[in-house]
Amino acid sequence: MKRKIDYKQVRQLREENKRLQVLLHLAENLQAHLDLNQLLFTTMREVAKILNADRCTVFLLDEEKHELWSIVAMGIGKGKEIRFPAEKGIAGHVATTGEILNIPDAYKDSRFNPEIDKKTGYLTRNMLTMPLKNREGIIIGVFQVLNKEGGPFTSKDEELLAAISQITATTVENSLLYEEQVHSLNSFVETLSATLDTRDYITAGHSRRVTMYTLALCEQMQMTDTSCEELRFAGLLHDIGKLGIPEAVLFKAGKLTQEEYETIKRHPAVTRQILGSIHFPRKMKNVPEIASTHHEKINGRGYPDGLKIEQIPLGGRMLALADVFDALTSRRQYRDRESIEKVWETIEKENGQTFDPEVFKIFLEIPVNKLISILEYDQRDRLDHDELGKLVAVPFKDILSIKKSPPEKLTKKHQTSLAIFDKYYLRNY
Amino acid sequence: MKRKIDYKQVRQLREENKRLQVLLHLAENLQAHLDLNQLLFTTMREVAKILNADRCTVFLLDEEKHELWSIVAMGIGKGKEIRFPAEKGIAGHVATTGEILNIPDAYKDSRFNPEIDKKTGYLTRNMLTMPLKNREGIIIGVFQVLNKEGGPFTSKDEELLAAISQITATTVENSLLYEEQVHSLNSFVETLSATLDTRDYITAGHSRRVTMYTLALCEQMQMTDTSCEELRFAGLLHDIGKLGIPEAVLFKAGKLTQEEYETIKRHPAVTRQILGSIHFPRKMKNVPEIASTHHEKINGRGYPDGLKIEQIPLGGRMLALADVFDALTSRRQYRDRESIEKVWETIEKENGQTFDPEVFKIFLEIPVNKLISILEYDQRDRLDHDELGKLVAVPFKDILSIKKSPPEKLTKKHQTSLAIFDKYYLRNY
Repeated sequence: MKRKIDYKQVRQLREENKRLQVLLHLAENLQAHLDLNQLLFTTMREVAKILNADRCTVFLLDEEKHELWSIVAMGIGKGKEIRFPAEKGIAGHVATTGEILNIPDAYKDSRFNPEIDKKTGYLTRNMLTMPLKNREGIIIGVFQVLNKEGGPFTSKDEELLAAISQITATTVENSLLYEEQVHSLNSFVETLSATLDTRDYITAGHSRRVTMYTLALCEQMQMTDTSCEELRFAGLLHDIGKLGIPEAVLFKAGKLTQEEYETIKRHPAVTRQILGSIHFPRKMKNVPEIASTHHEKINGRGYPDGLKIEQIPLGGRMLALADVFDALTSRRQYRDRESIEKVWETIEKENGQTFDPEVFKIFLEIPVNKLISILEYDQRDRLDHDELGKLVAVPFKDILSIKKSPPEKLTKKHQTSLAIFDKYYLRNY
Repeated sequence: MKRKIDYKQVRQLREENKRLQVLLHLAENLQAHLDLNQLLFTTMREVAKILNADRCTVFLLDEEKHELWSIVAMGIGKGKEIRFPAEKGIAGHVATTGEILNIPDAYKDSRFNPEIDKKTGYLTRNMLTMPLKNREGIIIGVFQVLNKEGGPFTSKDEELLAAISQITATTVENSLLYEEQVHSLNSFVETLSATLDTRDYITAGHSRRVTMYTLALCEQMQMTDTSCEELRFAGLLHDIGKLGIPEAVLFKAGKLTQEEYETIKRHPAVTRQILGSIHFPRKMKNVPEIASTHHEKINGRGYPDGLKIEQIPLGGRMLALADVFDALTSRRQYRDRESIEKVWETIEKENGQTFDPEVFKIFLEIPVNKLISILEYDQRDRLDHDELGKLVAVPFKDILSIKKSPPEKLTKKHQTSLAIFDKYYLRNY
């Protein structure tokens, strides 16, 4: 008798141990992700495994829109967002009432909404659905586990999922708070940049386009996401120092005096000063330096510091070319856009003087469809993306060499590329 | 024999069970805090309890300064920061080498730095010190547990602390990343506000002071930290819409034409438009509305929307008074600061028309020392805070009534208060 009890105890303790280990492992695993998508993917994958189920979905409540939403974790459409009214289907029922629903056969339950199955081609059999409650007991979403192997979910499964739900709710809330902050900072930078861009109608949209050219270079160079993000901020903010230059000088229509020109030349130093007062996240720590070196020249004759090539951060060298390319291809006060041959000729003259030859070379590799969509960003709703798609494999340098070739030597394909480029570049659309 | 084994097994399983429960509980507990200070306090308190020790400290590595730092969790100086060179003492040794140090008698160990004991009056006996490593195995800090009850730490304690250390490292890193983002957004708002403030030397420092008056009202009203934070952002950004007004109009020295005046009056609407494009964190969601209603009047004759008292958010009504008070007490182009009696007379005339009588009443309760330190914020390094401290219990209304009393009726205390107020208000210092 005694021995029997001991065995039972041992078994129970072992089970409990396993349960705790699983939960602890999950807690450690989940808290490693602050990025919401990563966190949701990990949660859904791990929880399906733990409950021996085929699929697990975390739906989050979007209070503003009164919708439940999630991202597809597996199969076709992975990464896509799913959204539906917050009271619809089983998940909606649970989100509204806070009840736990353990349904052995979904298609026999009138609350089940078979639409998602229809869309995804999945066949739901049994399902366990539970509210995701935060520490204050507020429902922030719904946990749904589908198709347990070997039959319906047990009350033990319910208990386990309840414990999991608590861990998940907290990590999800942390992640949402973090993303909210990231999103805020980002939208602040974007909005400020756009606001400053619109102050001068002649250069309207300048910072945005400079940023896009720079990101096109990034992509061509296969830089890391972090570096691209840093460059994006630097691009959006490179002219923030113009806030320190009087508009009377900045927007003067006629010729500038030497003194006025010197005043304008102060703007990158002011950019450095302003951005230097901001505590950027560590991975963005070079934003002030990159942004404030966009008027340096690799021969050391730029400003504000007259740095030479190796002293200028790569990002600054990228911005320098993007900045001039945008200036030369923007419509100016009294004239239209200069021809692309002339624009590039001007830039080529400065290659090795103002511009880093490496950056120069990479710029020539940017696909033309991308270049057009930046050049014509203010007309973005009017672009024909199917047509531009034909230029996806045409690097910028090809257009330049086509332009130089005698017309009779052009292939049909060349002619098409050129026609599309000219149509958009010359704004005949 | 069999039974004996079972008992041993049961005991081991129970112990393991307890260990897992403790770790899981800790993980859940720690991940509830994104705020770094709260997280550190909770960690130190919980871990001391778990290890049956008197004290636990988490030191974090400040890579930039190459220092270890922590905050005092208990006893005298709670909340204070401790900092020392990253290689100093036992903690420094562990941070540098990554070794685990289990020291049964601290004062017999030459690596022990008794200075902190000397400063705090604490007596360290035994200590267990362990590196805090993140998922990539990088040391981000040090865990130190002191004075285990009933003697030195065991190898079991070491194992437990190692598991705890892993959980802690991740939560600390999340918290650091979160705080970094909060800090970034905040410094961005502060810097932008200060930059815009300096554009016009006549109103230099305006947004900063308006924010400070508004926060003084907040404090008087004992508003929540969250509401104060929202108002702080609204105050710092209330004039951001001036970015949309040409400087030629904005800074015009002479009298404005009707048309120019109408142009300037557009600025709160532009503020709303700019701030409306920013995704503020949820708890700050009213920033655009508050910031853009600072020129509304409770009688409905303000702009841009002619809202009436109950339609204007409280924050907007607070900003309105703060805004005018700063305008009236700032030195203007050709003249000195107006007398405080005249300033308040002007405001009083608008009480119930422009200004909310509730806000008006509360403004009169602001302690005068606080008012002076805002009025004279641009001279903040020159203020005598001991002297100003004498006005800590004197509300603003007292100064106004003292000013109205015949001099012979003033008590000694009144005379002192008045003298100090006048000295700073009239800038005779």
